[in-house]
Amino acid sequence: MYKRKNRKYDEIRKIIIEKNVMGNSYSSVLICCGNTKILCSASVEAKTPAFIDENKMGWLTAEYNMLPGSTLSRKSRSTFKPDSRSIEIQRLIARSLRAAIDLTKIKGYSIIMDCDVMQADGGTRTTSITGGYIALELAVKKMLKKKIIKNNPLISKIASISAGIVDGKVLLDIDYQEDSRAEVDFNIVLNEKGEFVEIQGTGENNSFTQEQLFQILETAKKGINELFIIQEHVLKGKN
Amino acid sequence: MYKRKNRKYDEIRKIIIEKNVMGNSYSSVLICCGNTKILCSASVEAKTPAFIDENKMGWLTAEYNMLPGSTLSRKSRSTFKPDSRSIEIQRLIARSLRAAIDLTKIKGYSIIMDCDVMQADGGTRTTSITGGYIALELAVKKMLKKKIIKNNPLISKIASISAGIVDGKVLLDIDYQEDSRAEVDFNIVLNEKGEFVEIQGTGENNSFTQEQLFQILETAKKGINELFIIQEHVLKGKN
Amino acid sequence: MYKRKNRKYDEIRKIIIEKNVMGNSYSSVLICCGNTKILCSASVEAKTPAFIDENKMGWLTAEYNMLPGSTLSRKSRSTFKPDSRSIEIQRLIARSLRAAIDLTKIKGYSIIMDCDVMQADGGTRTTSITGGYIALELAVKKMLKKKIIKNNPLISKIASISAGIVDGKVLLDIDYQEDSRAEVDFNIVLNEKGEFVEIQGTGENNSFTQEQLFQILETAKKGINELFIIQEHVLKGKN
Amino acid sequence: MYKRKNRKYDEIRKIIIEKNVMGNSYSSVLICCGNTKILCSASVEAKTPAFIDENKMGWLTAEYNMLPGSTLSRKSRSTFKPDSRSIEIQRLIARSLRAAIDLTKIKGYSIIMDCDVMQADGGTRTTSITGGYIALELAVKKMLKKKIIKNNPLISKIASISAGIVDGKVLLDIDYQEDSRAEVDFNIVLNEKGEFVEIQGTGENNSFTQEQLFQILETAKKGINELFIIQEHVLKGKN
Amino acid sequence: MYKRKNRKYDEIRKIIIEKNVMGNSYSSVLICCGNTKILCSASVEAKTPAFIDENKMGWLTAEYNMLPGSTLSRKSRSTFKPDSRSIEIQRLIARSLRAAIDLTKIKGYSIIMDCDVMQADGGTRTTSITGGYIALELAVKKMLKKKIIKNNPLISKIASISAGIVDGKVLLDIDYQEDSRAEVDFNIVLNEKGEFVEIQGTGENNSFTQEQLFQILETAKKGINELFIIQEHVLKGKN
Amino acid sequence: MYKRKNRKYDEIRKIIIEKNVMGNSYSSVLICCGNTKILCSASVEAKTPAFIDENKMGWLTAEYNMLPGSTLSRKSRSTFKPDSRSIEIQRLIARSLRAAIDLTKIKGYSIIMDCDVMQADGGTRTTSITGGYIALELAVKKMLKKKIIKNNPLISKIASISAGIVDGKVLLDIDYQEDSRAEVDFNIVLNEKGEFVEIQGTGENNSFTQEQLFQILETAKKGINELFIIQEHVLKGKN
Repeated sequence: MYKRKNRKYDEIRKIIIEKNVMGNSYSSVLICCGNTKILCSASVEAKTPAFIDENKMGWLTAEYNMLPGSTLSRKSRSTFKPDSRSIEIQRLIARSLRAAIDLTKIKGYSIIMDCDVMQADGGTRTTSITGGYIALELAVKKMLKKKIIKNNPLISKIASISAGIVDGKVLLDIDYQEDSRAEVDFNIVLNEKGEFVEIQGTGENNSFTQEQLFQILETAKKGINELFIIQEHVLKGKN
Repeated sequence: MYKRKNRKYDEIRKIIIEKNVMGNSYSSVLICCGNTKILCSASVEAKTPAFIDENKMGWLTAEYNMLPGSTLSRKSRSTFKPDSRSIEIQRLIARSLRAAIDLTKIKGYSIIMDCDVMQADGGTRTTSITGGYIALELAVKKMLKKKIIKNNPLISKIASISAGIVDGKVLLDIDYQEDSRAEVDFNIVLNEKGEFVEIQGTGENNSFTQEQLFQILETAKKGINELFIIQEHVLKGKN
Repeated sequence: MYKRKNRKYDEIRKIIIEKNVMGNSYSSVLICCGNTKILCSASVEAKTPAFIDENKMGWLTAEYNMLPGSTLSRKSRSTFKPDSRSIEIQRLIARSLRAAIDLTKIKGYSIIMDCDVMQADGGTRTTSITGGYIALELAVKKMLKKKIIKNNPLISKIASISAGIVDGKVLLDIDYQEDSRAEVDFNIVLNEKGEFVEIQGTGENNSFTQEQLFQILETAKKGINELFIIQEHVLKGKN
Repeated sequence: MYKRKNRKYDEIRKIIIEKNVMGNSYSSVLICCGNTKILCSASVEAKTPAFIDENKMGWLTAEYNMLPGSTLSRKSRSTFKPDSRSIEIQRLIARSLRAAIDLTKIKGYSIIMDCDVMQADGGTRTTSITGGYIALELAVKKMLKKKIIKNNPLISKIASISAGIVDGKVLLDIDYQEDSRAEVDFNIVLNEKGEFVEIQGTGENNSFTQEQLFQILETAKKGINELFIIQEHVLKGKN
Repeated sequence: MYKRKNRKYDEIRKIIIEKNVMGNSYSSVLICCGNTKILCSASVEAKTPAFIDENKMGWLTAEYNMLPGSTLSRKSRSTFKPDSRSIEIQRLIARSLRAAIDLTKIKGYSIIMDCDVMQADGGTRTTSITGGYIALELAVKKMLKKKIIKNNPLISKIASISAGIVDGKVLLDIDYQEDSRAEVDFNIVLNEKGEFVEIQGTGENNSFTQEQLFQILETAKKGINELFIIQEHVLKGKN
Repeated sequence: MYKRKNRKYDEIRKIIIEKNVMGNSYSSVLICCGNTKILCSASVEAKTPAFIDENKMGWLTAEYNMLPGSTLSRKSRSTFKPDSRSIEIQRLIARSLRAAIDLTKIKGYSIIMDCDVMQADGGTRTTSITGGYIALELAVKKMLKKKIIKNNPLISKIASISAGIVDGKVLLDIDYQEDSRAEVDFNIVLNEKGEFVEIQGTGENNSFTQEQLFQILETAKKGINELFIIQEHVLKGKN
């Protein structure tokens, strides 16, 4: 029977966020969630992909990558495209961040959010979304200041947390050790109104009931509300 | 305000399933869900990927691919790896089917489920799972008959359906036209006990409440129960 | 000494052709020649490759692919480009079908013929040509009906059959078992006037005389004449 | 009406062959057929591909490549695999040369024939075969001398020539200018007994009769007989 | 005529080095040289490349990569292999670090040094070497402590600096602005004895005299001596 | 203690240069330096890469490739991009040749220098530069003659030689055997004025003093002066 040592079951790990760590980037953030460390860097380009009508809207996309030294045994750089898991993750990050922004207000522009993992200890995708939102808001403020865009396109803050079931117990913000023992694994993305932006829950070699689903959603909401407070605090701070 | 013409809002499309359409394949199924047509073909190989201890368990993986003529404007064959969307989908199919099988009972073997879309009209990933389960059960029966394995590794039937919110209304089994209008889009995978195997819900450019989530889950359960009956019927049939 | 069981030496296998099996495709055909089953799907695009002057002519190209479940041991999807054998085959299919059409009458358009093998039992390249011609004629009729082109660009029906020498005996339409025993292997493409469009004969680890060449050509002509009758019948039929 | 200036219609171009032009190669040949210049270099490796049982036989394969400066407008080096045309050609070269050798007598060894075109003026594939045979015989002699193999595996000389129909007239050994005007294009490979090893004839946008086929085969035989004499002469010469 | 504002012509930029910034990595360093910021992370693997006899020696290799946000306009992640410039750089880093270590004393092991640029302002390759040496010494100490190896394989500290000629004047440690104006550009690697490990000097669209070469070498030596002191200080520090 | 047999320590190998060996190429040269043989072929294209303002200047680039038969054990053709070593080499060749030409005088044009190694015995990169310069001058003369450009863009002849330290002794123009024993390895590129265009010196697993550097530079200068005389002689000759 699994017991958490230094945290309550519904407690998130310590969050540390440093702004503008990459001086050449349009905006950037180093976000640490416990031992998970991710560099989120936003770029802005005055063009849109072919499937977007640039007179009607802009676009936001994301790339997720683990640095070779981010894991205990070195992760080889992917030749060709990113590996399957990274592709699944970067699609989730991009969809989530697009829910934060009115794309019709960044006509003709693309925002690319690069999430490079420096240290991986579980929750890299949710931490990328939470940190990515801050980099996104910083980038949007810069676009407004530079008068690249006229109106604030931001709709709502977005934050994300994982939750899982380990030995039948619902745990918030699971780390790598817990993740490898989890029967059920959820990633939840919320907006400031408390509405769901994305829910992904998987019970590989297992399954879960509607009751368990409720408990997971409740604890996730609690955790994400704390993340919104931290995001607010960081964005108001100087740095 | 969207109105469905020939179906109720909580009604699934017509399902037609033909077994063993590919004579050289270990087992195969052509599944049609409305105008969506998918070839599911299972292969069995006496080896496992490097990350599996073949003395302890076997493996099941999936590949998802759209034939060039499956869409209204021709879909180019992907050079290199499958495209990002296909990768996301085949990971979902594989995770879902792995929930149907006790991998420790197929030690040293890999089952590969190829899902090739002949005609795409929405719900290709959920239809791949529903049809893929049938091909999986056929393959397992053949393995048992050939005495490749001793004990039935199947744990539970698995089936999947999509549901979405269009103009604020919950719709079951949405087709391509509905999907392009949907505010919220869910793919739900259940086992026979009615437990969840996987939930993926996304509200790109939108969000959804816990109330809407419940409605979606309820209608999905209803639809998937019908799929279980059809699966049972097909598997008992001759063909 | 090889003996055919259910066919005469100069007899083709049973041909079954079903039209429009892929509803989203511009035109499509499922052709079965004995146990060989191929999906031929034509697409039409309003552009031409760079080496074509689109004001003077159009283009026709082909892609050949074996589905993973089409062979007894699963055929891996080719990463990168199609494998060497597939490239050789798709070049033959495209050259043959181009002999059926006056490209100056489809100015600015490209027709892409996708041949996806569902079940392989020898003769997949010749069957792709025979079935591909039907899909081509269906596509051309649709282009005329939609007034994309004004004049019928078709010059002649095209059909193809294989022939080989097994244990010194000339065999028409050889299947996979026969092919693996064949000393000499021919693929012959004819037009309706009985003229040759393409001859490819190979005697790997062997050779053949001019006399044997004549016998092969005679039996191939006989077989292809039967294919022309079947093509005509199918194209006139409703389906 | 096309008229050849400096050659009769059934006359081959001037052949110049230099042996051992690449000192590090196992054996090598520079063959010039008119303005076509090709480096043929044989390598011998003490291993066979996976599909060969090395206790029963060896293997011979070929690679064909055009140097960037071999054509009037620079040919880019192919990224990834060789381009489609090169693949088709190298498969023909390899099949043809395999007809010259008893692979069971080079058990466990692979011969790789690299054909790199320095200057292209038509007939590069047939010239590669004719020159490749010489490099092959040189390599085999070296293997015998080094006692890598005991018995001579060579079965027969192999040579190849092109022929075509230009303005209705049969032409032997067509150059680039003639090739671009040709209605019908043949590549013929013979062994010393005058038997066919491979016939490839194509009438893209055209077709040909059995009568024309005979004329082409007759003129090709005449040309290839001259090539056998030149091969013999070169192989006996010192260099 | 170029004038440096805040530095003397033979003055290096401010160096800040932080150890163990990536907790999962075998050893890691964040090195800042002015506005250039690089993550150097060492991994140790118990295997060697095929060209190394693992019973006689080990190996050390390097990978160099710029994060997308490291440059003012976003640098796309390289598909396939790293780009040409990165390949040239990582070969230099690896050669230089191999001069610091006796590979026969790490038999059977490979050290991989990953240099990921967070912020690029000139001198990324020389800074990677200087920082890489520290990560290498940290890794070696850990290998000794873990008793993976018995004897210290380190031969000498290694450090590197750039120098260039701008408007005829020799400048030490040039930044990005200076680099784009430089007529001549040098990268110099020294060991602790003051001997050269590598010299690379290029005068694209220009050339340089032996006299200028001497001045460059002298100023480089001066700069590198300061780097050796900083390396020593950092390695002795706690952090 | 290493002793050269047929050459003095500061003597270059025998140079043989043949012009226009590839008739379709814009200009070409076969250069032999001892047993090293390289085909240098220049192409001219009326376009420039994206990073060049074609109204202000032109460009010159190079590609380096070893033919499979150029080495004692066959070198596989590189899939994807050229291998790392080739990339490093072709960047050096291109930089060096760009120092020979005023790119503003070939506005809108690109010169591509292809260096294909037929036989490798050390010094392939320096021989490529020395031979490449001749092909470059031939190409420029042709551009002037064809009035593609008005003014001669050539600034200076460029030639290159290697030098190394073997058993403590400085050797000019080292061959493959010497290279594999060398403690220090230099490639030096000079212009006609005796100024340095590029210096690359590496002491992998070793280092070198400033004194040794001087000796290497002196002997290299001596060798390159002989190369300038040979270049002049070849360029004036008919061939």
